[in-house]
Amino acid sequence: MTQPLRIAIAGLGTVGSSVVRLLTHQQKLLHKRCDRPLQIVAVSARQQHRNRNINLHGIDWEDNPLALVTRDDVDVVVELIGGAEGIARQLCEATLRAGKPLVTANKALLAHHGYELAALADSANVPLAFEAAVAGGIPVVKALREGTAANTLERFYGILNGTCNYILTTMKKTKASFADVLAEAQHLGYAEADPSFDIDGIDTAHKLAILASIAFGTRVALDQVHIEGIRHLDLHDVAAADDLGYAIKLLGIAEYTAHGLSQRVH
Amino acid sequence: MTQPLRIAIAGLGTVGSSVVRLLTHQQKLLHKRCDRPLQIVAVSARQQHRNRNINLHGIDWEDNPLALVTRDDVDVVVELIGGAEGIARQLCEATLRAGKPLVTANKALLAHHGYELAALADSANVPLAFEAAVAGGIPVVKALREGTAANTLERFYGILNGTCNYILTTMKKTKASFADVLAEAQHLGYAEADPSFDIDGIDTAHKLAILASIAFGTRVALDQVHIEGIRHLDLHDVAAADDLGYAIKLLGIAEYTAHGLSQRVH
Repeated sequence: MTQPLRIAIAGLGTVGSSVVRLLTHQQKLLHKRCDRPLQIVAVSARQQHRNRNINLHGIDWEDNPLALVTRDDVDVVVELIGGAEGIARQLCEATLRAGKPLVTANKALLAHHGYELAALADSANVPLAFEAAVAGGIPVVKALREGTAANTLERFYGILNGTCNYILTTMKKTKASFADVLAEAQHLGYAEADPSFDIDGIDTAHKLAILASIAFGTRVALDQVHIEGIRHLDLHDVAAADDLGYAIKLLGIAEYTAHGLSQRVH
Repeated sequence: MTQPLRIAIAGLGTVGSSVVRLLTHQQKLLHKRCDRPLQIVAVSARQQHRNRNINLHGIDWEDNPLALVTRDDVDVVVELIGGAEGIARQLCEATLRAGKPLVTANKALLAHHGYELAALADSANVPLAFEAAVAGGIPVVKALREGTAANTLERFYGILNGTCNYILTTMKKTKASFADVLAEAQHLGYAEADPSFDIDGIDTAHKLAILASIAFGTRVALDQVHIEGIRHLDLHDVAAADDLGYAIKLLGIAEYTAHGLSQRVH
């Protein structure tokens, strides 16, 4: 029998718990498609005893996520803690330094320290995988990295933040004000208590900077992104656009111009 | 220095010549992205002396494409001859039997004999790559094979034939008849002298059958595809759809139903 790929997962929030659930429920399908069993051997999160609606039976618990890296029975570390600094960054660096493949969905970390992480992965000659960091439901990172390897791209753009898109779509549909729709989105759990990260365009900028670095083979440059969010948008703006047959969307746009690479969120 | 990947190309029509041109013009970029030089060592086509606007200097010529397979200096064979039978099929089978990776853009061959070719590739443990066979400009094969490996798909659909889409779009825009637009498309080189393959939906069916086999992990089953082309479409149909705010498109649709896999072109 083929040796299983032994996985450690750090972070059991919405994403981490869902990964555990999928790896458990889709076990047979994934084994068949990967030609190798995928096995979770250990997990780590801030609180051990919390109802996450997942079955952790037979999976080891580590209080310190860094302990996952040094375990002999861990082949690959999955970082789903989040945040550009602190323990998430330490874990990712330690994993790559230990010569183990890293999977992360942490767009803030990649936007701020992606270049350094890529260099670490390169010198250790291990994969750094981050498909879920940008547009998780669409395999755009793989498509850009591998699918368009023979192409020279000039421009890409897209809607990169679901919270903003929900707010804009709902304003257009219901003619409710920005503040009301935001409050509703927060109530429904679509927007955070501190919504600034989403509505001020920072999350979109993180994702744009990551995609641009892959698409154009450049160094991630978050500080080069012009960022404008949707906070000051008025219902009159939405109505005026609608009258003209348009819709207002928050876009991330990256393109090569005569003056170099332009990265904009607005 | 890393050993180059030594490539043989069979078939120098529009696609084959363009591949030679891209591999030559993008040499540096591809070397950098692949971390290995890509080198064309030999080519084969029906007529050696024909102006194709490509530079074959330093590249060996073989009159018989099968001679490409047995050359010691060929690592991978690219089949761009086309056609479900004959020399294209022989070449692909010989390549895989010789334990060499095969790249093909031949959708007819894959639709008719894809299962047998996949089995050959599997027992020789070599890659069978065919991204260009379906929607060449969009990396959909890779996305389905690898990008959605953890997903269970229920349905996919799309416009899979450029000639039909050109005809339908032009009919809608210019209000010209099907026969007139087809004649113009033939004149412009968008449609073949015998357009049946495109306008009767056969090309779309080939691509649909290939994508469905990847998406659903089933055996390619061209004979299970319901096929209806656009030959009998009238300008009144296009106008009626337009009046209602719709557009007529030739779609390939594959979905899992209660009665199994449904594949339709209409």
